[in-house]
Amino acid sequence: MRSVFLDNHSGRRLDERVYESMRPFLKDHYGNAQSMHSLGAQAKDALEKARGQVAGLIKARPEEICFTSCGSEANNLALKGIVQAQADKGKHLIISEIEHVSVLSAARRLERTGFEVTTLPVDRYGLVDPDALIKALRPDTVLVSVQHANPEIGTIQEIAALARITHDRGKLFHTDAVSTCGIIETDTIQLGVDLLSLSGAQMYGPRGAAALYVKKGVRLVPQIEGGIQENNRRAGTENIPAYVGLGRAAEIAFGEMSANRERVVRLRDRLIGELPRRIEHVYLNGHPVRRLPDNVNFSVEFIEGEGMLLFLDGQNIHVTSGSACTSKNLKMSHVLAALKLDAAVAQGSVTMTLSKYNTDEDVDLVLAEFPGIVKKLRDLSPLYAYFLKTGKRQEAGPGTDYEHDHGHDAGDNAGES
Amino acid sequence: MRSVFLDNHSGRRLDERVYESMRPFLKDHYGNAQSMHSLGAQAKDALEKARGQVAGLIKARPEEICFTSCGSEANNLALKGIVQAQADKGKHLIISEIEHVSVLSAARRLERTGFEVTTLPVDRYGLVDPDALIKALRPDTVLVSVQHANPEIGTIQEIAALARITHDRGKLFHTDAVSTCGIIETDTIQLGVDLLSLSGAQMYGPRGAAALYVKKGVRLVPQIEGGIQENNRRAGTENIPAYVGLGRAAEIAFGEMSANRERVVRLRDRLIGELPRRIEHVYLNGHPVRRLPDNVNFSVEFIEGEGMLLFLDGQNIHVTSGSACTSKNLKMSHVLAALKLDAAVAQGSVTMTLSKYNTDEDVDLVLAEFPGIVKKLRDLSPLYAYFLKTGKRQEAGPGTDYEHDHGHDAGDNAGES
Repeated sequence: MRSVFLDNHSGRRLDERVYESMRPFLKDHYGNAQSMHSLGAQAKDALEKARGQVAGLIKARPEEICFTSCGSEANNLALKGIVQAQADKGKHLIISEIEHVSVLSAARRLERTGFEVTTLPVDRYGLVDPDALIKALRPDTVLVSVQHANPEIGTIQEIAALARITHDRGKLFHTDAVSTCGIIETDTIQLGVDLLSLSGAQMYGPRGAAALYVKKGVRLVPQIEGGIQENNRRAGTENIPAYVGLGRAAEIAFGEMSANRERVVRLRDRLIGELPRRIEHVYLNGHPVRRLPDNVNFSVEFIEGEGMLLFLDGQNIHVTSGSACTSKNLKMSHVLAALKLDAAVAQGSVTMTLSKYNTDEDVDLVLAEFPGIVKKLRDLSPLYAYFLKTGKRQEAGPGTDYEHDHGHDAGDNAGES
Repeated sequence: MRSVFLDNHSGRRLDERVYESMRPFLKDHYGNAQSMHSLGAQAKDALEKARGQVAGLIKARPEEICFTSCGSEANNLALKGIVQAQADKGKHLIISEIEHVSVLSAARRLERTGFEVTTLPVDRYGLVDPDALIKALRPDTVLVSVQHANPEIGTIQEIAALARITHDRGKLFHTDAVSTCGIIETDTIQLGVDLLSLSGAQMYGPRGAAALYVKKGVRLVPQIEGGIQENNRRAGTENIPAYVGLGRAAEIAFGEMSANRERVVRLRDRLIGELPRRIEHVYLNGHPVRRLPDNVNFSVEFIEGEGMLLFLDGQNIHVTSGSACTSKNLKMSHVLAALKLDAAVAQGSVTMTLSKYNTDEDVDLVLAEFPGIVKKLRDLSPLYAYFLKTGKRQEAGPGTDYEHDHGHDAGDNAGES
């Protein structure tokens, strides 16, 4: 049975060429880059080649690349590492409301240890208002962290503008670019950021390999301490096979980015254009224009995201939902909550993230199957029955919990980081 | 040219069977264990199978296994995570002098943030004295961390006794078992520890996969925060291929441990027995009996470790040295320093770590090549010339720096963690 994978933010198929680059380091070249003998030198060469490839993708210097094990680690290192290193300059941190949970959680931890955190709201499209940042910046601010794009709703922030505002006040700027690196241009010079998180898995590279770009001269306190690896910024024996894979993935992404983008944008726009023609009462979430090339997010009124996800899965179409829940309460992702959507609409959200491996046939299948599934679910929906009878929408019931809870929010946590 | 790899603590050849177990998860099954669809469930199953395999090796419950990206991360999580979670109970921590740099560095970081650290000395064989631990324990102690065995000198600590003493005072005990897990028995019940670090690479598994055993009921503060992965103890998308590999490696190690041990002990004992017969003035470092089956560490008088390492490398024999240096000053590893060896002896230390892939032919080659290399280096040594002329040993010169410096100590950092 044909399988259509549209949950590519949670994990992407490894590019065959990346796999081939890793294989010798998995099987035969197992030297440690810190060893003084010749096998160590071989490992060190591979490590530095990979570092250069990653640097090339984001227009950085190789020594500005600090490898980590995942995007969440890179985000934790950025926030905690910078704030701890700059504690004498102030104890104030600014983030946005729709950051990845690793940024939110790191900020919350810092809050508990004496730092103050300002959380910037977003508009109905998920955009941070530069004026809100201007107002939030204080003399004791040490870091601003706003993600490059949101993987759930696809909205791309105006990072260059936000970074400029931050630099005008002499403060540091971090962006979580896990959803954009390798997918759209992430030029650290153009963006003007001091720190940038990226992850291999998002660019058809391996798990276990990510990186934090740390602009030359920016000091941070390592969070995994011990050896001198990564220029004293991240201890632990280097995961050479994974880093080699990340390097190769970055190199491929750099070369093939426009072609891939064009391809997924076309598939994305077929879904965004055609689904509302085939299904009534569906609404696109996120920004209509400043949008990830691979992201589709719809709210389908009168039904729940979890139901759509499971029925689509039954047809071998794999998607995710920011309103899927694993607990008994209906929970909504913090991202959808931040958009202040009507609750009855937001609960029926479905996210599809495309990859370079998706095809027109995949889109055809979704367009063919999705309307029937929505119909089936709506036939079971008391909200829809009420609407059909009265032509009115029911208010959200008292049992509906719109608090976001990272501890139980599958939508939040399924993102690859 | 035949290559003899005797630096297995810095990295081991991946077992072919482990590689085969990882391959499908690298190439085809790229689902995210947190996804709600069926590919997510497949990933979750693989993750939990691996967790069970690791638990089986150390006689733990699956839910007591918290996967991490490396041994250094596991050690950092153990120390910082426990001490932060128990800060209301006290601010005192006990470690030994010969811990891995990740334990030493984590302890030093905690010291800078208001905790007090007592460092237990070791005897000339590298053993911690249980009486010293009894004296060091205080009402405000929250954690004792002593490594199971030292990878440089091979000494195996009396963990069960140390853990018992610690528990008698109602305190928590952590052991860094990176060098022992999969090599000798590491039964958490028999050892009686509350926390135990292990690493995949040490048991012929992949890099990027390690774990912290956290006894049921022991609370810790996560260090990489974000998603709910690893039961809220370690965020970030699970590195399924690596964890699957670690699980398979643990399973293989469990089944083949005695056979492998017997094999490497025989090779080890050939080296330990025969090298002193072929080379004068060599001294075994570490404990003669309580010793890792795969560890050989000799001090060769009158010459330097780095010279031996490089000359052996020229013969394709790869070893390491706790007295190798990358800076101009002669530095000694903190482990050798703790043994309080005579400086002139300690500077000529060489560590060989065997693996299950080493053979009698490997040992033959070392026995054939090593004496000639020592002779060559001694012929260049003013210390040796003085000894030959006078029959006396020269005092260490003023240019010799016996401080250990983790920032430049290759011996410290080449260990796989």
